[in-house]
Formats: sequence, structure tokens, C-alpha cells
Amino acid sequence: MRTISSKDNKIFRLCQQLSQKKYRDKLGLYLIEGENLLEEAVKNGAEIKTVLARPDYGGCFFGTEDKVFSLDDNLFRQLAQTETSQGIIAIVAKPEISPARFLDEGGGGNFVVLDRLQDPGNIGTILRTADAAGYSLAIVLKGTADVFSSKVVRAATGSLFRMPVVFMDSVDELMEFTRAAGKKLVATCFDTDRYYYDENLKENIALIIGNEGNGISRELIEGSDLKIKIPMHGNIESLNASVAAGILMYEAVRPQ
Amino acid sequence: MRTISSKDNKIFRLCQQLSQKKYRDKLGLYLIEGENLLEEAVKNGAEIKTVLARPDYGGCFFGTEDKVFSLDDNLFRQLAQTETSQGIIAIVAKPEISPARFLDEGGGGNFVVLDRLQDPGNIGTILRTADAAGYSLAIVLKGTADVFSSKVVRAATGSLFRMPVVFMDSVDELMEFTRAAGKKLVATCFDTDRYYYDENLKENIALIIGNEGNGISRELIEGSDLKIKIPMHGNIESLNASVAAGILMYEAVRPQ
Repeated sequence: MRTISSKDNKIFRLCQQLSQKKYRDKLGLYLIEGENLLEEAVKNGAEIKTVLARPDYGGCFFGTEDKVFSLDDNLFRQLAQTETSQGIIAIVAKPEISPARFLDEGGGGNFVVLDRLQDPGNIGTILRTADAAGYSLAIVLKGTADVFSSKVVRAATGSLFRMPVVFMDSVDELMEFTRAAGKKLVATCFDTDRYYYDENLKENIALIIGNEGNGISRELIEGSDLKIKIPMHGNIESLNASVAAGILMYEAVRPQ
Repeated sequence: MRTISSKDNKIFRLCQQLSQKKYRDKLGLYLIEGENLLEEAVKNGAEIKTVLARPDYGGCFFGTEDKVFSLDDNLFRQLAQTETSQGIIAIVAKPEISPARFLDEGGGGNFVVLDRLQDPGNIGTILRTADAAGYSLAIVLKGTADVFSSKVVRAATGSLFRMPVVFMDSVDELMEFTRAAGKKLVATCFDTDRYYYDENLKENIALIIGNEGNGISRELIEGSDLKIKIPMHGNIESLNASVAAGILMYEAVRPQ
């Protein structure tokens, strides 16, 4: 197996760069870590560029053997994002899908819209839940934290390889897109009398999940087709963003 | 205002100790941080022992003024658990409630059971969601991470001041307790044909949420009164523990 043992090695330096969003954006690549994620990536046809294994890695390579380099223990530690790393990291190409192409290919199903979420754990968990609930697309609005950071990738547990993700710069672009796709834009807010379980959230909706601290932007709430709320006992002001997303997205799963 | 400026000060040293579970257990105290949590603590009648404010703290003390010390900037930084601290920390007494007393006082409502959860974010989020869903009690099984660690306290956003929490050492103790309280013990697992939305999860249940990696213990699954599953599309094996908890607990909120 080819071995990397110098910190000046090109592949090692590339991995270091990919811990930063600006290089992930520029190069269209990101990192995944762990045997499970590598397996999911292979199974779902993600484009795997390079695999780096710690010398003591005892797991499977899932057919990527010709892309594997052995990486010095000390260098591996510099790249690993988890405390108890399994000893395997891969460089993966970001999937490329444009909103236009998604529409051309049918544009069916439910969408989840991430409106400036900041917590990587929440973002990854929402992608994972959307995938489990059979949602077809995630729309990431400008101002949301990077979907390809290591924490998001980890929390998404493979859903990033299955769930198409598109990026939009403005509320106008989003509204034009959801209209063209025939989706009802759904926002949660306080200023409504409608409870989520009284509405039809089964199909053809674009469900907006808002920023952890400030919720959904005023502009988006005003532009939405349906405003709903989740009732809360006592003095609770809000639910965690990924829990709220889970409760609402699972409305699509239950029988009518 | 009284000022603390030495690292040998008794109160400062106590706060340092309280970052460790063994001292929280021994002393029956824990720390909260931030203006919102202090307000929630006061509003919900938590027993606040001491408040430490950074000299530049510009927020409210909510009637705890006689317990406030000003803490040197440098010392405060050593205690603060958040990167952008608001400059206020308080020492709070753990609420004392035993399973027996909870039963004596009526023992009504739904319970959530934490079976060896490890992620503090999940634990805090589940307490927050249980509170919002009107659950009446959280039961923490041995092997679960500490409910009074700073990360749990933060993720619970005040629900620790409202939601009674009791601790149990064994599955037998849990089953005896839920039986005495007249609750149906509910477990999620793969090995069942029943979907959660077909069952009555509205009242008098004790819902078990299992460890992030391994799920609910075999012993508990076998001892449960109802086994349910949450359907998942594609190849997803599981949901995040707090999302699953949210979907299931909110069954109690929706009208029949």
C-alpha cells in the first residue's frame, strides 16, 4: 500500500485544506470519516477520490482499495475529527445538482428548507430525518452553516449521499422555485391559530426550518403559503430545531 | 457588590469543582450559565445559592441581588462554558425528588425513561421536549451521562427547573415503579410489526429512549408492555435519539 509520511505531501495538505469551508467550496470536495460513512458513500455511489487509512485500520475498504493510501499515525491524528477515530478518512466529491435540473427530473416529493441554521449537529440531524421521512430535497438558504463540514457530515450519518441538496441566495429565488415545483411553502411561527396536526403536511410541501435563535426570517414567514404552530405546554418558548423538524416531517409518514 | 479576585477564593474553587460530576453528586449542587437560565431558575423556584457576575455584566439579576458576587474577568473566563458568555453563572441546588414521593403526590402523566444515553445534547433536548409535550417525569437509568453537566443544562433550556427527574439503578426498579404508577412501558425496536401512530401513546405511558449507538437494552425491551417502531425510508437504520423521542412524545399532544 502506498504510504504518506510527510506533512508536505500533497494529499495530506489537501485534507488539511478541506477542513476549511473556503477550500471545500473552491475544490468541490469534502472529507468523510469512519468505516460506516465510507460504506454508505460507496453504496450510494458517491464519487470517492482518495482514501486515507491509519496503519492499524482493521476495517473494510468496500472496493476502494485502489484509492487507499496509508497515512502515518501522527499525520492521521492531525486530520481526525473524532476523539476515537476508527482510522479511516476519505476525500469525496460534492454531489452536483442544480435546482433547474432537479425540476427537470420531476421535482416531486417534499422539500425541507434550511433558513440560516447555525448548529452543525442540527443541520446534519435534519438531513438524516428528512431522508428517513422520505423527503426528496433539501434547500439550503444563504447564511446557513456549511453542509459539508465534518460535524454536519457526521450528524447526517450518510444521508448526504442520498439526499439531494441545492443552494439558494435569496427568498425570491426560493419562492420562485417552490412555485415552479408546485409546492406549498410552510412556515412555523407564533402568529397563527393553526396547529400542525390539523393541516395536510403529507405531500408537496416545502417546510421551512428557521435559525436556532431567531426562527424563520420575517420575509419568509410573510411569503409562506401556510403558517402553522407546534403547541407547547408550560412556558416553553420553542423546541430544538431538529426536534421540531422531525415532528413536522414525520407528518408525511403517518397514514391519513 | 462583593468582589472575588483570588483563585483561592472558596466560592471560586467550589465552582471549579462543580464542573466535575463527582462533586455535583457529593454536594447536590450544579452550575447554570446565562441570563435566560437564571431567569428561568428564579421563575420556577429553583434554589439559587450564589450568583457570579463578570464586572461588565449588563443584564438582570431577577431578585437574586443579595447572592451576587462580582468575579474577576480572568477568573470568570476559567469557569465559563460557552465561548460567548453573557457574564453570569449561578450555583443551584439540585432538586430533590424521590420516586416514592413522586408516586405519593399523584404520579400522573407520561414518563420518559433515559436508558444509558451518552450525548449531553440529546439528554438536554429530550428533557426540553418532554417538558413541551407535557410529560410529567424523567427517569434516568444508571449508565446515562450526568443530567446536571453544563451541556445538558444548556440544551435543556430551563426544563430542568420544571421537569422532575428521578434516578434508578436497575431495570427491576424501573419496572416495579412503572407498574406501581400504572404506566405502560413502551420500547422502540426493530423486532415488532406495530407502528407508533397506530398505538395509543396519549397517556399513562413510560416511553424508553435508548442509547445512541446500541438502542434500548435487551432486558428492557423484553420487559416492556408495548413494542413499537418508527418507519424509515430507504436504508436508514435509525433516527437521532432526540428526534425519535420528539416524534413519539408529541403523540401525546395531538388530538385523538
